[in-house]
Amino acid sequence: MARTNANYGLLAAGYLFPEIAKRAKAFQEKNPATKLLRLGIGNTTEPLSPFVVDGLKKAADRLAKVETYSGYGDEQGELRLRAAIAGRYAKSGIALTEKEIFVSDGAKPDAGNIQSIFSQDCVVAVQDPAYPVYVDTNVIAGRAGKFDAAKGRYERIVYMPCTEENGFFPQVPKQKVDLVYLCSPNNPTGAAATKEQLAKFVDYAKKNLAVIIFDSAYSQYISDPALPKSIYQVEGAKECAIEVNSFSKSAGFTGVRLGWTVVPMELACEDAAAGKLNGMWNRRQCTFFNGASNIAQEGGIAALSEQGQKECQDTIGYYMENARIIREGLSAIGLKVYGGVNAPFLWVKTPDGKKSWDFFDALLSQAHVVTTPGAGFGPHGEGFIRVSAFGHRKDIEDAVESIKKNLKI
Amino acid sequence: MARTNANYGLLAAGYLFPEIAKRAKAFQEKNPATKLLRLGIGNTTEPLSPFVVDGLKKAADRLAKVETYSGYGDEQGELRLRAAIAGRYAKSGIALTEKEIFVSDGAKPDAGNIQSIFSQDCVVAVQDPAYPVYVDTNVIAGRAGKFDAAKGRYERIVYMPCTEENGFFPQVPKQKVDLVYLCSPNNPTGAAATKEQLAKFVDYAKKNLAVIIFDSAYSQYISDPALPKSIYQVEGAKECAIEVNSFSKSAGFTGVRLGWTVVPMELACEDAAAGKLNGMWNRRQCTFFNGASNIAQEGGIAALSEQGQKECQDTIGYYMENARIIREGLSAIGLKVYGGVNAPFLWVKTPDGKKSWDFFDALLSQAHVVTTPGAGFGPHGEGFIRVSAFGHRKDIEDAVESIKKNLKI
Repeated sequence: MARTNANYGLLAAGYLFPEIAKRAKAFQEKNPATKLLRLGIGNTTEPLSPFVVDGLKKAADRLAKVETYSGYGDEQGELRLRAAIAGRYAKSGIALTEKEIFVSDGAKPDAGNIQSIFSQDCVVAVQDPAYPVYVDTNVIAGRAGKFDAAKGRYERIVYMPCTEENGFFPQVPKQKVDLVYLCSPNNPTGAAATKEQLAKFVDYAKKNLAVIIFDSAYSQYISDPALPKSIYQVEGAKECAIEVNSFSKSAGFTGVRLGWTVVPMELACEDAAAGKLNGMWNRRQCTFFNGASNIAQEGGIAALSEQGQKECQDTIGYYMENARIIREGLSAIGLKVYGGVNAPFLWVKTPDGKKSWDFFDALLSQAHVVTTPGAGFGPHGEGFIRVSAFGHRKDIEDAVESIKKNLKI
Repeated sequence: MARTNANYGLLAAGYLFPEIAKRAKAFQEKNPATKLLRLGIGNTTEPLSPFVVDGLKKAADRLAKVETYSGYGDEQGELRLRAAIAGRYAKSGIALTEKEIFVSDGAKPDAGNIQSIFSQDCVVAVQDPAYPVYVDTNVIAGRAGKFDAAKGRYERIVYMPCTEENGFFPQVPKQKVDLVYLCSPNNPTGAAATKEQLAKFVDYAKKNLAVIIFDSAYSQYISDPALPKSIYQVEGAKECAIEVNSFSKSAGFTGVRLGWTVVPMELACEDAAAGKLNGMWNRRQCTFFNGASNIAQEGGIAALSEQGQKECQDTIGYYMENARIIREGLSAIGLKVYGGVNAPFLWVKTPDGKKSWDFFDALLSQAHVVTTPGAGFGPHGEGFIRVSAFGHRKDIEDAVESIKKNLKI
């Protein structure tokens, strides 16, 4: 008699985005003539670079001819793409071999699946607030324990508070943990860690034989040259950190699907000498995955070329100009705005200590703007809303203008 | 101190394909002037249908324009594609709603991940021989126990022998099991189950509240109209079976990556009423997956159109003509050949009770043909080799001619 994975029953309801949709829909039904303005969505909106599109179409054309058709590729990804990714790291002085780079269909699957090569009794630490995938995948894997609804926490997860006081980058945990999820530039807070901040975690991980899972999906949005785009810019990080990255936000591939994960040969942990974790992730990918789409991979190669990089960076510049417009507009009416300088997300403090959802409702009913309540990303997200810089310029301007004109603070 | 998932240590070495490559390479080095002929690869070789290529390119073009650009889609797949897949089932009299269809990046990931929604103590039954992913993913999940090298079996896996006597389709297990993996048309044996054979498993599953995981990735190769292309053609199967399928072999998408899984609303098991398993797979996909590539999905929609189906079926006909050439050629020299009529694989009995690897070596050294030793797919694969019909016609003809001319039986 087949039984189900009981850990699914421990998942707190996926409440955030359905609830946003529900409230937006209810408002729209009451106010059918009002145009809803959206600053809540973390999804790219601008077209792909022409050079990348050309790469994608050439890949499709190659599949049309018997001389150039290709079927299954390596589960680890095309060598040319892995070499191009290694080349991207080399520009920051980081030496990686192709064997340490695993191409995938995106950062979300990798960030979700990476925990599966570790023991079920590992203790997991996450930033609070954080992207929900880190927590939910560990709940399903049986590492989180029960959810305490009053506290908004799982009993076995270690939450590392990201607050105004610490610039939204946490201190290292006081206790010993085994897996540490870090995301920088951060979703949802928009904070980008300094080298010194990351170095403290690398020290912690090496001292405690913990493994850092570093999500750098937004690294191309860093404008400050002093800030690290990769955790491997920190000395010793290869011995203790896995890095996940993506073409989603850097090349507009949210729908095309392409990402990668670096598992350095030096990486080790309690029962794994150098090389073993690299081999385990390789085995995991060869068993559960069949490679990223060859068309997407050709697009990725085009995106990493000189011309591709230039065009992709233009689009990033467009979104960051959106971020500037939002930041200045909301600051001008007295709101406290964080992020949006080295990240496409802005983290806005609610006025007068309002709850996230109350401020969400005020923005919706008064300014007709949909945002994302910070409380949905973890207990320390309470008292904030996340605003996204992804959107068409006109929509961003309209939303900011409407907030400036209509929001009663 | 992070520890690794100890189940990885239980995996028997991935011996089959590396060993084939090693022996082929050694032969080639000794005989540099000899051209190796390949009948071992389960990979598509013929170009995509022009109509499908057009669909892929149009999808890329849409991403180039702001009016038609799209980012993240539904994790479950584009509604139009799910509707087209439902339409394909409807032609066989099977009514499915879009909610029961989950589009993915291929049958391998789905066949690998589906076990994760079930309890770790479920007992797993597999056909013997079988596609290694069914076993290996359950080893990693902790359901297989230790590997007995002498027997070539994991202690907790129930192996269902597929033999000449039962036409390479197994009897239902004598004991109670929880998850039953079936693949029809079968890789590696090329056997396609009858409706009556599947009905026995549906009866077994319903009686024991077991869940069947039915891999139908080769269903489009069925030429006999009496044979079922889906397990849902069997009455009651929706209550006990999940079906995995793919565009890899039906549309040449081995590299493009697109598949789907059906989790019917009626499906239930010991602790899951109807609807619960559908919801769990939905939650799994929304947490660990971010949707298949939107370009691949447009290709899939094109492949399922009338024009696409016609062109894809032409390619299948090409491979099946390869299969006929192999079958007749090898039969003509007295070899016993199974499969290759409703499947792209042929299952060839070794002469004189030879071991799989010995016959592999004879074919390699005498005829310069690379095949796949059946023993690599499970204990009951011993005494057989798998021959694949994927390949260019000329290469297939050359390989068959060389075997006919050079093999000493």
